[in-house]
Amino acid sequence: MDEVAQGVAFVDGRFRPVGEARISVLDMALTKGDSTYDVVHVWKGRFYRLDSHLDRFQASMNALRLDPGLTRRQIEDVLHECVSRAGLRDAYVSMTCTRGRTTVPGSRDIRNARNGFYAFAVPFVWITTPEQQEHGASLWISSRPRIAPESVDPAVKNYHWLDIQMAQFEAYDHDAQLVVLRDQSGGITEGAGYNIFAFVDDRWVTPKNGVLGGITRQSVIELLAEDGVALDEGHLSADAVLRATEVVVTSTAGGVMPVTEVNGRPVGSGRPGPHTRRLRDRYWARHGDDRWSTPVRPSRPMQLPEVFD
Amino acid sequence: MDEVAQGVAFVDGRFRPVGEARISVLDMALTKGDSTYDVVHVWKGRFYRLDSHLDRFQASMNALRLDPGLTRRQIEDVLHECVSRAGLRDAYVSMTCTRGRTTVPGSRDIRNARNGFYAFAVPFVWITTPEQQEHGASLWISSRPRIAPESVDPAVKNYHWLDIQMAQFEAYDHDAQLVVLRDQSGGITEGAGYNIFAFVDDRWVTPKNGVLGGITRQSVIELLAEDGVALDEGHLSADAVLRATEVVVTSTAGGVMPVTEVNGRPVGSGRPGPHTRRLRDRYWARHGDDRWSTPVRPSRPMQLPEVFD
Repeated sequence: MDEVAQGVAFVDGRFRPVGEARISVLDMALTKGDSTYDVVHVWKGRFYRLDSHLDRFQASMNALRLDPGLTRRQIEDVLHECVSRAGLRDAYVSMTCTRGRTTVPGSRDIRNARNGFYAFAVPFVWITTPEQQEHGASLWISSRPRIAPESVDPAVKNYHWLDIQMAQFEAYDHDAQLVVLRDQSGGITEGAGYNIFAFVDDRWVTPKNGVLGGITRQSVIELLAEDGVALDEGHLSADAVLRATEVVVTSTAGGVMPVTEVNGRPVGSGRPGPHTRRLRDRYWARHGDDRWSTPVRPSRPMQLPEVFD
Repeated sequence: MDEVAQGVAFVDGRFRPVGEARISVLDMALTKGDSTYDVVHVWKGRFYRLDSHLDRFQASMNALRLDPGLTRRQIEDVLHECVSRAGLRDAYVSMTCTRGRTTVPGSRDIRNARNGFYAFAVPFVWITTPEQQEHGASLWISSRPRIAPESVDPAVKNYHWLDIQMAQFEAYDHDAQLVVLRDQSGGITEGAGYNIFAFVDDRWVTPKNGVLGGITRQSVIELLAEDGVALDEGHLSADAVLRATEVVVTSTAGGVMPVTEVNGRPVGSGRPGPHTRRLRDRYWARHGDDRWSTPVRPSRPMQLPEVFD
């Protein structure tokens, strides 16, 4: 594979192969985890809900007092350009705004930081394997609590994942592929980049608080409403997940993915259920629909602000 | 200033000016905050408690199942070499082990990651200004809770600082330079890279749980024991800090630093007190003592494992 086919990044104001995309070890994105990001995907040459992702990215930057130094239109252009230069039809497209470094020598005052921005498009990422998408993945309910929203707001998409990474190791230790973490009161929150829905007592239940407002999660909520299927957005207990007849996780990196085993026990029949299959089909059908998707533009010359020269 | 005088880094197996030290935007140190680090300092050409820092760094890597691909002796050699190549007499010397990237194409399995290591030496960093060291800094007690130890263990030194960064903005908004965060039950924990001690009711009090086991904190504990001054390692309430007659913060980046204002109110007389001054003097006196410090070695050729070639 040539290096551009592995992905194209925009960093320091230039497009380059993603393998060459690097940032300073002194950027506070590294030394303080101080950044926010978003990930949108391209399917068959079309962005899915790019506007929703750009809205959320802007809200996250506002919450953290970050300024990428680019307009929304310029960010959008950069994302299109990364995908078209990489020649990808199905892509995982990431954008990050970092705190950067202080511009005053010797100063530790984070208000003096010049924020940074980078983005990249790589081949589409699947959280679960093709085999797991067909037959269902196994899920572990971790005993490690998710970082509390009062400390770091999960609705502001962030890279504070050490709790999730350690919970993921715990899941592997129990032969499970996926993991969800609980909140301080024991309610289920979210997993490693995915939200969770459980079908229990004739309705879907998904956690409302302490989670990222996933765009795929939002798509599922809309599809359920269109279908007139009942949904409780609220508290989801571990017991409910263990009693559920269907369970899915939802993510930009894979869409609606069936879970057929929780903590070593089969979910329902142990195979993806009818509600899950319908949701997944309807989710992917949206990707060719002009209401939800927009074609990737061909590569073209760009105007960028001076800071990126 | 020439670029080497701004610092020297070791990254990808090579020494280079710190301004050129960069890591991949795909390293999980960035995309998951999955890394651990330690910082040691050099004062007047001598490392202070390098062994204690290397012990802690190793314990942190063990806790996160990280392997830097270098022996302890090689890490030690790298740190000496960074300082000597930079020509620094007083230095802030950082070492980081990152999760890295999976070595299996398309795999998201973090067990397949090849971990990374980098280090750098830059001129000594002071958390407070010279004026604040002489007259005392102002501190804000934030209402934002520190990330709970059950989610991410603060004793394993990590870059999950968004809670601290947001609390730091809150401190600036209240015209304070320093900040400490509380735990879920309201007890004081730690600040932006520093521990806190308050002198109240004829003894020092410092939080025991939910904090990094700071090496400077440990030095202060030893100095108090040598002097026969009473210390409670346990719970420190906001009320106790507000009633204290002396308050200090402790960090590798500045040592023992006086705080003379808390939430806009003067601490004691509003000037650094006698206990604080004695602690600070005794802390710095240790830096020339062979029991606590070791001279930086001159630059020399190094043997490194093949992975770093």
